[in-house]
Amino acid sequence: METIRWNGDSVTILDQRVLPHEELYHTYVRYWDVVLAIKEMEIRGAPAIGIAAAMGIALASRNILAEGAKDLKGFKDAVGTAIQHFEKSRPTAVNLFNAAARMKKLLDSGSNAEQISQGMEAEAVAMLREDIESNRAMGRNGSRYLSDGDVVMTHCNAGALATGGYGTALGVIRAAVEENKKIQVYACETRPLLQGARLTSWELHRDGIPVTLITDNMAGYFMKKGVIKKVIVGADRIAANGDTANKIGTYSHAVLAKEHRIPFYVAAPVTTLDPATGTGDDIVIEERSVDEVAFFLSQQIAPEGITIHNPAFDVTPARYITAIITDRGVVEHPEGKGIGELLK
Amino acid sequence: METIRWNGDSVTILDQRVLPHEELYHTYVRYWDVVLAIKEMEIRGAPAIGIAAAMGIALASRNILAEGAKDLKGFKDAVGTAIQHFEKSRPTAVNLFNAAARMKKLLDSGSNAEQISQGMEAEAVAMLREDIESNRAMGRNGSRYLSDGDVVMTHCNAGALATGGYGTALGVIRAAVEENKKIQVYACETRPLLQGARLTSWELHRDGIPVTLITDNMAGYFMKKGVIKKVIVGADRIAANGDTANKIGTYSHAVLAKEHRIPFYVAAPVTTLDPATGTGDDIVIEERSVDEVAFFLSQQIAPEGITIHNPAFDVTPARYITAIITDRGVVEHPEGKGIGELLK
Repeated sequence: METIRWNGDSVTILDQRVLPHEELYHTYVRYWDVVLAIKEMEIRGAPAIGIAAAMGIALASRNILAEGAKDLKGFKDAVGTAIQHFEKSRPTAVNLFNAAARMKKLLDSGSNAEQISQGMEAEAVAMLREDIESNRAMGRNGSRYLSDGDVVMTHCNAGALATGGYGTALGVIRAAVEENKKIQVYACETRPLLQGARLTSWELHRDGIPVTLITDNMAGYFMKKGVIKKVIVGADRIAANGDTANKIGTYSHAVLAKEHRIPFYVAAPVTTLDPATGTGDDIVIEERSVDEVAFFLSQQIAPEGITIHNPAFDVTPARYITAIITDRGVVEHPEGKGIGELLK
Repeated sequence: METIRWNGDSVTILDQRVLPHEELYHTYVRYWDVVLAIKEMEIRGAPAIGIAAAMGIALASRNILAEGAKDLKGFKDAVGTAIQHFEKSRPTAVNLFNAAARMKKLLDSGSNAEQISQGMEAEAVAMLREDIESNRAMGRNGSRYLSDGDVVMTHCNAGALATGGYGTALGVIRAAVEENKKIQVYACETRPLLQGARLTSWELHRDGIPVTLITDNMAGYFMKKGVIKKVIVGADRIAANGDTANKIGTYSHAVLAKEHRIPFYVAAPVTTLDPATGTGDDIVIEERSVDEVAFFLSQQIAPEGITIHNPAFDVTPARYITAIITDRGVVEHPEGKGIGELLK
């Protein structure tokens, strides 16, 4: 299973919308298809969409070269426009913007279109490799927070499917399992798009890690019963003060964890940190189509004529977070100190 | 729209599993079909299943008479067995057991099979009428807690569809609207069976009460934003100390409401009070089929081989409840005093 792969002249993406029924791979040669794959959540997860954007931009530079860019300025303008399309594809995950920024730097500093394109290709491939390495490092940094016998709740999918491989939150779990700790995972299904039911339970079950699926609204019930010992989630953007944007529902879980005195961990690579965003209030929350709530697959579940909201993310204030686990180290109790020590 | 109707020789039930697509009514002449209608949640909601059980038992007495019960003892034994089937249909809502107890009393005290059967029929019809009256009384008692302009969140369906008509939690909202208060309702979709999406938003929209549908995991987000001003839910059983069993997810909402200092109201008829159950820990929580979680409508969403849990209810301790609103009065801050004052 590979989330995303660079083929030299194309990008192959595992279509996460049809999992777990079907393991369907699409190979794209036009960058615009990669923009759509991000927008329509064929690929999702903050680190994974960062990599997809990088590979998509590398593909754009190839497409534009192949179409015969008339000069360096023409090439740079066209690739710059492609980068803007990626930046507009989804607003919340900062990894996308970080990937775009790395590509822009290559574009701005280059003086030869072919060399820029080759540089972008190398950069995109490096980002995939770096991401997997950073997940492994996160696992090493975070596994000490999980104990033998723990039942760990997670939300959405912060796993191999959300990254280049291995995973952020699920990477920490995998690292603990590799240390021979017995870990059981409670996966919240994660409405509306059911990433927990479809992706997290699938990839953990495939790896032989015991997983129990619950609906999002059962979290409090299993915390009150004493079943759940820890919570660990990924992140889409972490503001300078430690406030963390992640999949809608994360904040509710954090409040419940606090009420039950259960540690609440965020695992994310430093590429998810955004020192330019002061607090969670400054993070743009994507509002997605209300049809994601009103329909399930082709089946309408809500009556016509009512109002529906579909914010894709929420912000968990730093005070609810026990520790932010990154590839570069851990910030325990980020409230009041933020993420600064990770950026030195 | 009628949730349930007694026809003299049959019971007509609105099939809530196919709403809002279809308004489908089934008319049953055999009591066993009514047992199944309760079990399979064709009719649901604590007060409504109490009425359905009463009507089903009245139907059983007719069926058994028509089959030619050989004597009074034979009639009483057969009806007694039917009552047991109803008692085993669903475990959590106390209204079902209260209805069965009322019917048992008629059965035990009667000395003529035909008269008992007529008495049961009259009792069942009276219970439907009483339920609607009690909902109206609850509305009068509770509407003062809702203010003009309030945005009120609710969970599951505690409306006309869950009762003989009008509703418990939604009855309080309807009463406030009848007093010309502008009330907007946020309906949580209520996984796994989507009673909020399918039933609450349908019946409110039909009545012209503005309703916004959200997924269960958005509750914290909209509380933190300051959108939601009050929470009101129904109940399936209220223990002597005020602990309240209601649809899974209710407890999580109560914790979130406390964290955001939002009043959390429970509306239920006194038939939902259970002085015989000391605390919430003594309430049996129904575990329903895991297929309700694994399949979304007819579509499988979870991989094979994983564990799934499906508790249908949770218990909200009295300390999270701002007030319990009943047809016989209101207990504010039930923690430490329980429901005793309503039972005098």
